[in-house]
Amino acid sequence: MSYLGVGVSPGNVPVYHSPNVKLLDRGVRVAELVLRCVICGLGVLAAVLVGTDTQVKEILTIQKKARFTDMKALVFLVIANGIAAAYSLMQILRCAVSMVRGNVLFSKPLAWAIFSGDQVIAYVTLAAVAAAAQSAVFAKLGQQEVQWMKICNMYGKFCNQVGGGIASAVLVSLSMVVLSCMSAFSLFRLYGGNKGKSSARW
Amino acid sequence: MSYLGVGVSPGNVPVYHSPNVKLLDRGVRVAELVLRCVICGLGVLAAVLVGTDTQVKEILTIQKKARFTDMKALVFLVIANGIAAAYSLMQILRCAVSMVRGNVLFSKPLAWAIFSGDQVIAYVTLAAVAAAAQSAVFAKLGQQEVQWMKICNMYGKFCNQVGGGIASAVLVSLSMVVLSCMSAFSLFRLYGGNKGKSSARW
Repeated sequence: MSYLGVGVSPGNVPVYHSPNVKLLDRGVRVAELVLRCVICGLGVLAAVLVGTDTQVKEILTIQKKARFTDMKALVFLVIANGIAAAYSLMQILRCAVSMVRGNVLFSKPLAWAIFSGDQVIAYVTLAAVAAAAQSAVFAKLGQQEVQWMKICNMYGKFCNQVGGGIASAVLVSLSMVVLSCMSAFSLFRLYGGNKGKSSARW
Repeated sequence: MSYLGVGVSPGNVPVYHSPNVKLLDRGVRVAELVLRCVICGLGVLAAVLVGTDTQVKEILTIQKKARFTDMKALVFLVIANGIAAAYSLMQILRCAVSMVRGNVLFSKPLAWAIFSGDQVIAYVTLAAVAAAAQSAVFAKLGQQEVQWMKICNMYGKFCNQVGGGIASAVLVSLSMVVLSCMSAFSLFRLYGGNKGKSSARW
């Protein structure tokens, strides 16, 4: 078992550490597990809020239904957050297995895979949020110069629910950004070979 | 002077390395310098292509002028790429100073600043590209469900030039993603203390 019993890789590879580094490790591991849980929960919330959002509006005798599939950016947001949630769940399960089995030593390729996965999810969720936010701005404010009209004054409830989904997705992408820095730290420290030198020179 | 005479920090802090690690270091430094030059050039190109783009269209007797300021996403793209180019130029100049002065030892806070700067620029340029690409899709294809009409069949030359700018900006953001991984490597390896252990255990 690792110090805390939270076997979050790649940080759970036993290395020689000073008490300060042990404390840093412990903080990184707890923060990593908490962030993965937050991302899983908020990713599901964002996908459900946007994916289940509909509103029917009657204009004269014609019924019009607003759905998230009307805008590709919202479809991208639902897919990206769904993937982020599933990926985080997978990582949480891996941590649970590691807790049950004790402190498993992971291979460098696995550490690289986790780092790469975190990077890809961070950039994809951020891109999805940016595209969805841009669409939301058009929907909320319109774009007078090109005669794109506001649609949120017609579909107020729909827009509010999408807004909630985008807010959750923003938190997911920010958490992924922090997490990708942590997995970079956990991976690249393995390539360090300057023990006892850095503190003297820097 | 560093091995190659390209004093790109934070990787130019002298540490004990095997020949393989020296080779890796050399590759990372050259790639870093090349990428910073690419980002500087393409960032300027993207900002100029989008920022100078205009087209006047006469509809009946009314003259309408398309400008990048008509869409906030394009303004964001110009600013983000301008900042990325200026930041890269600053980093290239720092490398030049380091080449002239020889192998300067940088402080850990500076290495952290470079890592943070690279991360911020990578995420900002990617968000700008995603938002601009979403606007470009609306402009090119329209959004029939909400009656937002295509505008690129009216402003073809304007859209093509913006397309070129977005293509350059995509390359800038991808280069920044790779660069931010490199600066993470250069920074976090300084926190490693497992020399000679990892290869045996992993």
